[in-house]
Amino acid sequence: MHSLCTVATQKFLTFPWFSVSSVREMNLSVQAKLPDGQSLPLPPLILAELGKDPQKPTVCFYGHVDVQPAKKEDGWKTDPYTLTEIDGNLYGRGATDNKGPVLAWINAVESFRALKLDIPVNLKFIIEGMEEAGSLGLEEIIKKENQRFFSDVDYIVISDNLWLSNRKPALTYGTRGNICFSVEVRCGERDLHSGSFGGIIHEPMTDLIALLDSLVDTSGRILIPGVYDDVASLTEEEKKLYEAIEFDLEEYKNNSGVKKFLYDTKEEILSHLWRYPSLSIHGIEGAFHEPGIKTVIPAKVIGKFSIRQVPHMDISIGEHQVIKYLEDVFSKRNSPNKLKVSVPISAMPWVADINDPLYTAARMAIKTVFGQDPEMIRDGATIPIAQTFQNITRKSVMMLPIGAADDAEHSQKEKISRHNYIQGTKLFAALFLEIAKLHGQLQEASNTTTTN
Amino acid sequence: MHSLCTVATQKFLTFPWFSVSSVREMNLSVQAKLPDGQSLPLPPLILAELGKDPQKPTVCFYGHVDVQPAKKEDGWKTDPYTLTEIDGNLYGRGATDNKGPVLAWINAVESFRALKLDIPVNLKFIIEGMEEAGSLGLEEIIKKENQRFFSDVDYIVISDNLWLSNRKPALTYGTRGNICFSVEVRCGERDLHSGSFGGIIHEPMTDLIALLDSLVDTSGRILIPGVYDDVASLTEEEKKLYEAIEFDLEEYKNNSGVKKFLYDTKEEILSHLWRYPSLSIHGIEGAFHEPGIKTVIPAKVIGKFSIRQVPHMDISIGEHQVIKYLEDVFSKRNSPNKLKVSVPISAMPWVADINDPLYTAARMAIKTVFGQDPEMIRDGATIPIAQTFQNITRKSVMMLPIGAADDAEHSQKEKISRHNYIQGTKLFAALFLEIAKLHGQLQEASNTTTTN
Repeated sequence: MHSLCTVATQKFLTFPWFSVSSVREMNLSVQAKLPDGQSLPLPPLILAELGKDPQKPTVCFYGHVDVQPAKKEDGWKTDPYTLTEIDGNLYGRGATDNKGPVLAWINAVESFRALKLDIPVNLKFIIEGMEEAGSLGLEEIIKKENQRFFSDVDYIVISDNLWLSNRKPALTYGTRGNICFSVEVRCGERDLHSGSFGGIIHEPMTDLIALLDSLVDTSGRILIPGVYDDVASLTEEEKKLYEAIEFDLEEYKNNSGVKKFLYDTKEEILSHLWRYPSLSIHGIEGAFHEPGIKTVIPAKVIGKFSIRQVPHMDISIGEHQVIKYLEDVFSKRNSPNKLKVSVPISAMPWVADINDPLYTAARMAIKTVFGQDPEMIRDGATIPIAQTFQNITRKSVMMLPIGAADDAEHSQKEKISRHNYIQGTKLFAALFLEIAKLHGQLQEASNTTTTN
Repeated sequence: MHSLCTVATQKFLTFPWFSVSSVREMNLSVQAKLPDGQSLPLPPLILAELGKDPQKPTVCFYGHVDVQPAKKEDGWKTDPYTLTEIDGNLYGRGATDNKGPVLAWINAVESFRALKLDIPVNLKFIIEGMEEAGSLGLEEIIKKENQRFFSDVDYIVISDNLWLSNRKPALTYGTRGNICFSVEVRCGERDLHSGSFGGIIHEPMTDLIALLDSLVDTSGRILIPGVYDDVASLTEEEKKLYEAIEFDLEEYKNNSGVKKFLYDTKEEILSHLWRYPSLSIHGIEGAFHEPGIKTVIPAKVIGKFSIRQVPHMDISIGEHQVIKYLEDVFSKRNSPNKLKVSVPISAMPWVADINDPLYTAARMAIKTVFGQDPEMIRDGATIPIAQTFQNITRKSVMMLPIGAADDAEHSQKEKISRHNYIQGTKLFAALFLEIAKLHGQLQEASNTTTTN
């Protein structure tokens, strides 16, 4: 990750339109704590800026250059780390999450320069390399730079999620949060032979499987008491927003490869993706995971699951509820094994005001580039920086995706289409113009109000 | 495996006491089927012989040169594939299972040659390279050679298990069988992001976890109906055998690293290890298994578990019971996911007659070398060849371990002690003498009976 971030910095440094002094590598004081206890320095954060005209609004773009793990043998047709075009799609890890959108924004800026047009806004960039690991250290920098780098920022734009469909552009006003849990059950220090100990010991896998099986029922309902207590009630206004969305259920199913969902209607599906919590079990560390057979009793197994949180759930209450529940379930088993539950990462959910001028400008830009209105959507995934930026800087924050629903972020065969990459570039350029226009009108209105 | 086996063959070919013509590499006609569908030729089997004196009994030794997987990062202190001596122990994958005992047998033969002593028995060797993968192809060869290679064999000795304690020698008269199950649950072809699909799909991991959780309770009891129906009842004679065993429960616990077992008494523990079935869950393939976090919904997950079978359980009945049970549990979940249960490997349990002359000879040899009587034990693990040899050849089959209980076979830091390796060599040499003596007495008795 460090080297990727350094490469990105060098890229910024070589753009002729940035003076060297306007790009800074921020070294983070915190360290990444690896699961094995090892500490690693974090990759630096990049802060860059272009333009300081006090008459222009200032737009800050956030992006990240780190990616999820990917190996060709996971099921990729091409090397995940060599961008490969097939039938109009650009395949590669990070193509849509998030290197593609970062480059599209840079392309938009470069277009103005190539056409010798005045860029109608002042630009700032904040690029990090720890997003996929929970944006470690980012909050610290935002706090530190709040009165400096962010002081003259008017709008913050994040393009780190996807449209709801493959073809219809969208604007995102909310994301779910996430609490990740690690549940360790241990009987000793070394794995045992199931022939030599099977039948006479409490196997940690049996305990762990029972704990994981106590979390969620077959209908997807989370079984932990109290989890739904603070979930916001669905308002009539919100219902109407869902009804207005053109959601192609069949297309969404096809993108997932899953034949049957838990719900049948658009409203049920969108609300369970966006505004209700969900629990997913990701896997088990320490057990046998390879093809074939190994008749082992693993001595230490760690189950990994996460709960997508929604407004107005509270992370610390959620943590407490889950840990207490797991400890209760475990104590009923009378197992002599050791249980340890930890929360390596958590992030709060986020909701924005869709009547903010930034959203108005983006709607206009989308109408210009795509010839249609955007869908007003939320994202079921967690992009913690939206909440972090909004909380600390109190600026307008918007998520403006350019990737399509079938981009397979975090999965095998991640891609961005050539079409979306180019139209996304145009969209960002159009956004600069619309923001400038709207900002001028707002200032004029404010001046008129003042002179009246 | 192939190369290992070839090396072993070359070793045989270079022993001056084998004429080249007495060592054969048997190529197997079946192929190994890998989990990914690929077929591989099996490594050849080695048949070797030394001596053809019709006055002497013929002893056939079985061993294997393949090993369980091992990586240094699993928790080894030394490279698992470089034999390393530390404090009188020889560490390395295969040190006790089963390369050490194979070499000890060869050393015993070499000792007679070095001392220019007549070897009192005719010797045969059968060495394979597929034991850890279920001895694929071995049965075919035994059947094929039953009227040739095995026709003049009197006794078959296997040294592929461990003593019950760290210090007391043992003789093994039974082993458990094993049925390995693979339980695949699939929702589609590619993994999904838990943010984009968490809450709206039936996750395969949730189904699999529920299936695995339905197998065994916290007391170790298997929950599959009918599993215990054919388990032999514990006889009074058998009880007495258990009572006579000096079993150091604390030592066995220390060897395992486990603080508390499911049972407290020697009889309960030994019977649950040897003559009652057990079920162990080994792991899950296809889910996230690395350190850290990956917020993935795995699309295809394969749970691996196995049931150690005991007399008089039947493999095909067991398979049927488990598959039917899993299908029942799954159908109650109303999941649209696909379930597939398969049995990649199974092997029958084995019990021998402890009054056979081969066991008498071994008891004498143990008394000579170790100065004490052996423990008469069974093995909770599965060494399918004992049953296979007994079934096909109808010869006397005995398991004569030389490794100690703390040898960590199949685990990290596998070893054999220098002491056991050397005493084991002596034991095999003494066994040749005892078998010859007993065989002579038996023949004499048989002649006397005839002349009377």
